[in-house]
Amino acid sequence: MKIFYSSDDTFEANFAELLERGKMDIEGVTGIVNGLLKEIKEEGNTALKAQIAKFDRWEPQSDEELMVSTEAMAKAYDSIDPKLRDALHLAYDRIEAYHQKLMPSTWMDEDKTGSILGQKVTAVDRAGLYIPGGKAAYPSSLLMNVIPAQVAGVEEIVVCTPTPDNEINELLLAACHLCKVTKVYKVGGASAIGAMAYGTETIPKVDVITGPGNIFVATAKKLVYGEVNIDMIAGPSEIGILADESAREDYLAIDLLSQAEHDEMASSILITTDSELANKVSDKVEEFLGTLSREAIARKSIEERGAIIVTSSMEEAIDLMNEIAPEHLEVVTKDPMSLLDSIKHAGAIFLGENTPEPVGDYIAGPNHTLPTGGTAKFYSPLSVEHFIKKSSIISMSKEGINAIGEACALIANTEGLTAHEESVRIRLRD
Amino acid sequence: MKIFYSSDDTFEANFAELLERGKMDIEGVTGIVNGLLKEIKEEGNTALKAQIAKFDRWEPQSDEELMVSTEAMAKAYDSIDPKLRDALHLAYDRIEAYHQKLMPSTWMDEDKTGSILGQKVTAVDRAGLYIPGGKAAYPSSLLMNVIPAQVAGVEEIVVCTPTPDNEINELLLAACHLCKVTKVYKVGGASAIGAMAYGTETIPKVDVITGPGNIFVATAKKLVYGEVNIDMIAGPSEIGILADESAREDYLAIDLLSQAEHDEMASSILITTDSELANKVSDKVEEFLGTLSREAIARKSIEERGAIIVTSSMEEAIDLMNEIAPEHLEVVTKDPMSLLDSIKHAGAIFLGENTPEPVGDYIAGPNHTLPTGGTAKFYSPLSVEHFIKKSSIISMSKEGINAIGEACALIANTEGLTAHEESVRIRLRD
Repeated sequence: MKIFYSSDDTFEANFAELLERGKMDIEGVTGIVNGLLKEIKEEGNTALKAQIAKFDRWEPQSDEELMVSTEAMAKAYDSIDPKLRDALHLAYDRIEAYHQKLMPSTWMDEDKTGSILGQKVTAVDRAGLYIPGGKAAYPSSLLMNVIPAQVAGVEEIVVCTPTPDNEINELLLAACHLCKVTKVYKVGGASAIGAMAYGTETIPKVDVITGPGNIFVATAKKLVYGEVNIDMIAGPSEIGILADESAREDYLAIDLLSQAEHDEMASSILITTDSELANKVSDKVEEFLGTLSREAIARKSIEERGAIIVTSSMEEAIDLMNEIAPEHLEVVTKDPMSLLDSIKHAGAIFLGENTPEPVGDYIAGPNHTLPTGGTAKFYSPLSVEHFIKKSSIISMSKEGINAIGEACALIANTEGLTAHEESVRIRLRD
Repeated sequence: MKIFYSSDDTFEANFAELLERGKMDIEGVTGIVNGLLKEIKEEGNTALKAQIAKFDRWEPQSDEELMVSTEAMAKAYDSIDPKLRDALHLAYDRIEAYHQKLMPSTWMDEDKTGSILGQKVTAVDRAGLYIPGGKAAYPSSLLMNVIPAQVAGVEEIVVCTPTPDNEINELLLAACHLCKVTKVYKVGGASAIGAMAYGTETIPKVDVITGPGNIFVATAKKLVYGEVNIDMIAGPSEIGILADESAREDYLAIDLLSQAEHDEMASSILITTDSELANKVSDKVEEFLGTLSREAIARKSIEERGAIIVTSSMEEAIDLMNEIAPEHLEVVTKDPMSLLDSIKHAGAIFLGENTPEPVGDYIAGPNHTLPTGGTAKFYSPLSVEHFIKKSSIISMSKEGINAIGEACALIANTEGLTAHEESVRIRLRD
C-alpha cells in the first residue's frame, strides 16, 4: 500500500486527492436518468417493462410478473441452511433492539397558563426500499432497510430489486420472508426509483425511498428528492482506521481488505503514529490479498484508492480523519474510548481491537447504511428517523394568548402583515 | 370564497386540483440556476459580484462590501422601538426553550458481555442560513433559522440575504445583532446558495443550508443537495382549518386571510361539517378583505387558491385534510385534543380557538419553517435535527465478539465476502 508521511512537502496534495475519493459524476448521467424517470412517470408499467427488457434482458409478460410471489419467498426461507437462518434471526433481533432505542416519542408540555407545546411523531404511510440485486445481492441490506421502517411503524413497505435475466438471489428472498416483507418488485436501477417516486399501475407511490445503489440509483434519488424524501446520496464504501503502536498489523490489514473487497472504487485509509506499524500493515495486506475470493477487486481498490498515512501525533491523525469524515472509522489504540470526544465526523465508530467493521455490517445492531465520501459531515446513519416525520403541537389557553399576544401582534405589524396582527388582536379583544 | 360539497359529483376533480397546489416548475428554471451555480463554483467572488450587479442592481467594489458590518447591526438594534426589542427577545427565549427540548443526546449502553452500543450526536461545523430580503425581509425568519443552529451547537453560522439596490432591512439587521450573528453577506437567490455550497474567497463553504426562498432558491437547494445537506424544498405557504359548528366565523376568516396575505400563491383551505358556518366564513372573508394592508395579494390568493369544503362528518374532513397534509393546520372544534391522534400529516398543528396560526409564526416556540405542498407527509419542521448528525458507536468486548462472531462470519461467507469473514474469524481464533 502507498505510505504517506504528513511531514512530507508533497503531503498536502496527496491528502487533497484522498478527500476527492467520493466524487461521483452525477451530472454525467443526469440526462439519461431524467429520460428514464420521465418515461416511468408518463407511461407507468409499459415503460417499466420496456426498461427491464433493456437493462435486465427479460420482458415481463404481465403486470403480475413484476412482483415476486410470497410462496417463492417462503420456499427460499425453508431451503436455507438452518444455521444461517439462526444467524439472520440473531441479526434481526439485534438490529431491531438497537433501532427501537432510536425511536422518538410524541410529547406535550403544559405551562402555568394551561397552554401546551409539543411534538407529534408519525410514521410515513409508505416506504420504498431499494436493494441492489444480481449476484451481489445482500440479504443484510434488506434487514438494514426494512427493520428501521418496521420499528418506525410504516404500514406499507415496498421493496424493489433488479433481477438480471429474471433471476433473483435466493438468500434475498429468504430474508424477505424472514422480515415479513410481502411487496417485492423485480425492478432495478433508476426505473425502480422512478416507479416508487411516481407510482405505477402495480407499484405504489411511496413517501420515502432508502437504500444503496450505483450511480444511476444515486442520481435518480437526487432527481426525485422533494417529490419524496430520501435517506442520502451514497457512493462507494470506505473505511478509515486510527491506530497507535498497540495495534496488531494482521487485524488492521484484514480490516482494510474487508472494505477493499466490496468495490474497486472503495477506499481503505489507515492513519497511524507508528511508521513501523505502517510498514508491517502494508506487508500483511500484500500477504492476505492472495487469499481472498475477491482478490482482483480488492487489489485494485487498495492500489488505486488505499493509503497509509503516518503522522507525528494522534491529535494530527484525528484532525486528518475528521477532514476525511469516513463512512466507517475503526479506532485501534490503547484507550479508544478516550478519543471518542475528539472524533467529530464518521458514519459509524468501531472502538477497540475486538470490533472489526464487519460486525457493524451484519450483526452488532446499528445500521450499515452510512454516509460516504465525506458526507458524514452532515448526514446520519439510516435510522427510524428516515421513516417518521414530526408535527409541532401548539394549544394556547385564553390566559396564554393574553400573555404573549401583544408581543406577537407587534412583530406581525412590524413585518407589515396586518391580517396576522388582526388574527391575534381579535382574540385579545374578546 | 369557493365552497365545495364533498357529496357533489364534481368534488373529486376539484379536490385533485387542490392537491396540486404546491407544484413548482423546478425543471423550468433548472437550466438558469445550474448556470449561476457553475459560475460561482468556478469563479467565486468575481461571479458573485457580477450576479449581484445583475439581479440586485448594485456592484460590490471589494470583497469586504459583500459583508454587512457588525456596527450596522448594533446600530439598527439600538434604534428600534424598545417594545419591539422586548417582543423579539421574548420570541427568542421561547423559541430557544422549545428547541432545547428537541436536542438529542449522545448515549451508550453496555450489555452483559461488556460490549457497548450507542450513538454520538455532533453539530455540523458550519451552517448557512438563507433569509429572503428586500422590503419583505422578516426578522422572524432569522430567529427561526438561527436559534435551532445555535441550540445544536454549530460553531460557525453564516447568513446570506439579498440587498436589492444595496438596501438592507433595518429590522433584519437588528435581529442579527439580537441573535449575535456576525457573518452576514449581501447575496441573494441562487447566488447565495451556490456561494454557501461551494464556498468563495469571502463566504465559507457550509455543511447544511436552510431557509425559505423563491423558486430559484428552492431549485438551487435541490441542485446542491448531496454536496451539502438542506432542510427541505419549500413552496408557497398554506393553511388548512378543520372546524365544526362550535367555531366562530370571524376567527376562521381572519386566520384564512393571515395565510392569504403572504403570497398570491398561498393556499387557505377550510374543511367543516357545518354548511352554515361555511357561508358565514365566506362572507366574513369578503368583509375583512377590504381592511387589509395587503388586500390585493390576499384577494388573489383567496379567489384562485382558497376553498371551503363541506363534509358530512368530521372523519371525512380529517381524511381529506390528511391527504392535503397542510403546512399549518388549525383544529377549531369542541374538543380539538381528541382529534390529535387521527391527524397524520401536518407541519404544525394549532389546537383550539385561542391558537391562531400567527402565534406559531412568531412567538409560541416551535419553528415556522415547515413543509409545504403536501410534503408534510415526509418532511418535519426545521429543527436542531437539521444542524446535527449522528455517528453509531460500537465497542465489542472479547466476550462479545466471541458470542456473535460465528453468526457474523457465516452471513459474510454467504454473501461471498471472505475478507469480511476472515476479519471476524481472525479474532475468534485468538
